[in-house]
Amino acid sequence: MNEQQKYCYEYPRPAVTTDCVIFGFDEGELKLLLIERALEPFKGRWAFPGGFLNMNENADDCAQRELFEETGIENVFIEQLYTFTDVDRDPRGRVVTIAYYALVKLSEYKVTAGDDAKKAQWFPLSQIPTLAFDHDRILRIALTRLRGKIAYQPIGFELLPEKFTLPELQNLYETILEVQLDRRNFRKKILSYDLLIDQNQSVTGVAHKGAKYYSFDKKKYEELSKRGFNFEI
Amino acid sequence: MNEQQKYCYEYPRPAVTTDCVIFGFDEGELKLLLIERALEPFKGRWAFPGGFLNMNENADDCAQRELFEETGIENVFIEQLYTFTDVDRDPRGRVVTIAYYALVKLSEYKVTAGDDAKKAQWFPLSQIPTLAFDHDRILRIALTRLRGKIAYQPIGFELLPEKFTLPELQNLYETILEVQLDRRNFRKKILSYDLLIDQNQSVTGVAHKGAKYYSFDKKKYEELSKRGFNFEI
Repeated sequence: MNEQQKYCYEYPRPAVTTDCVIFGFDEGELKLLLIERALEPFKGRWAFPGGFLNMNENADDCAQRELFEETGIENVFIEQLYTFTDVDRDPRGRVVTIAYYALVKLSEYKVTAGDDAKKAQWFPLSQIPTLAFDHDRILRIALTRLRGKIAYQPIGFELLPEKFTLPELQNLYETILEVQLDRRNFRKKILSYDLLIDQNQSVTGVAHKGAKYYSFDKKKYEELSKRGFNFEI
Repeated sequence: MNEQQKYCYEYPRPAVTTDCVIFGFDEGELKLLLIERALEPFKGRWAFPGGFLNMNENADDCAQRELFEETGIENVFIEQLYTFTDVDRDPRGRVVTIAYYALVKLSEYKVTAGDDAKKAQWFPLSQIPTLAFDHDRILRIALTRLRGKIAYQPIGFELLPEKFTLPELQNLYETILEVQLDRRNFRKKILSYDLLIDQNQSVTGVAHKGAKYYSFDKKKYEELSKRGFNFEI
């Protein structure tokens, strides 16, 4: 009996996976990237991309590896969400999953499914099918985290193209937070942080005509936050 | 070879534990309940109480069981914090830990160490010894969560006796958030929520003399929060 078997023999262990809730924003809607499962259990059902933790990688690396293998997405905002451990959450046996959520600039991603994923597809939040495993519950908790966090950390920019207009930014917040924001106050507040870089370019292409394009000064934000700056919408 | 061995043989798995950061508040100080480890690894070092996940329990149940077994503490505020998965975090081999944090009314707990814990002791935050495993990192993240959460959820009351004075409550917030709060504004804001029940009793015992005792109306808060009420200090 090798070490691994011996270890298991002494102490039964759950299997450990990571799963990743992938948010995108497009056409004024919050969207989710789902994978159609090619294998049992829940073959043919939609689910979040994920897979088993390797013995030589931590959960962050596993989540990013699975995200890339199953969707081709890499180098995006990704954060640990919560760990789901219900005894009966996986018909294969005891499986604990460390859930993550990622924020993706949807416009930049042509998604390519691979690995044990049959098909990858973006779904509007309003049209999410019944998900595999306990992924419906994972989604509810991911939405709560996103709504809670977007109000006091500038993560919303991760969902927008590099260049965006203030109306687009306001629309993002209104959609995710499910509130109406006053245009003047929103504009005033967001510009007061001095974290948006004017691209000297407007939607119409004509100077001083139509909404202006801005980009988010992430570097400056990181500097400021080190010194205790608080972002808030 | 039984099912468990077979499962392990096909897929190597990390062991899974829970650990619990236990906060208390006493004598104007934030305190932590630590356990002196009676067994290797890190025998004799201080650590958070915790242990291996059983195959028939979820992580919440495991954390509460270990908390009770090792400290006698039960029925307190406890919440999942973060899952720590660094490959080399445990010299015994690959061990993933699901960390929790608990808030305890210190005055109510005479702590009794048992199980594989040698000794349990409350330490002021300013005098925490070097901890076993990666528990120093777990503590940093638990403090960040506590400071972040206490400002917008009324969890601070979990650290105070049932009956407390406004100066005691203000002191709790000032200590944990490491800020000075204006006495008048604090008093006005906290009373404006109408979530404190006047105990018609003062520290001096003499009516209208000395600070009054209040208790927190948790039931009312839970009702209000269902309807979208936001607590904020």
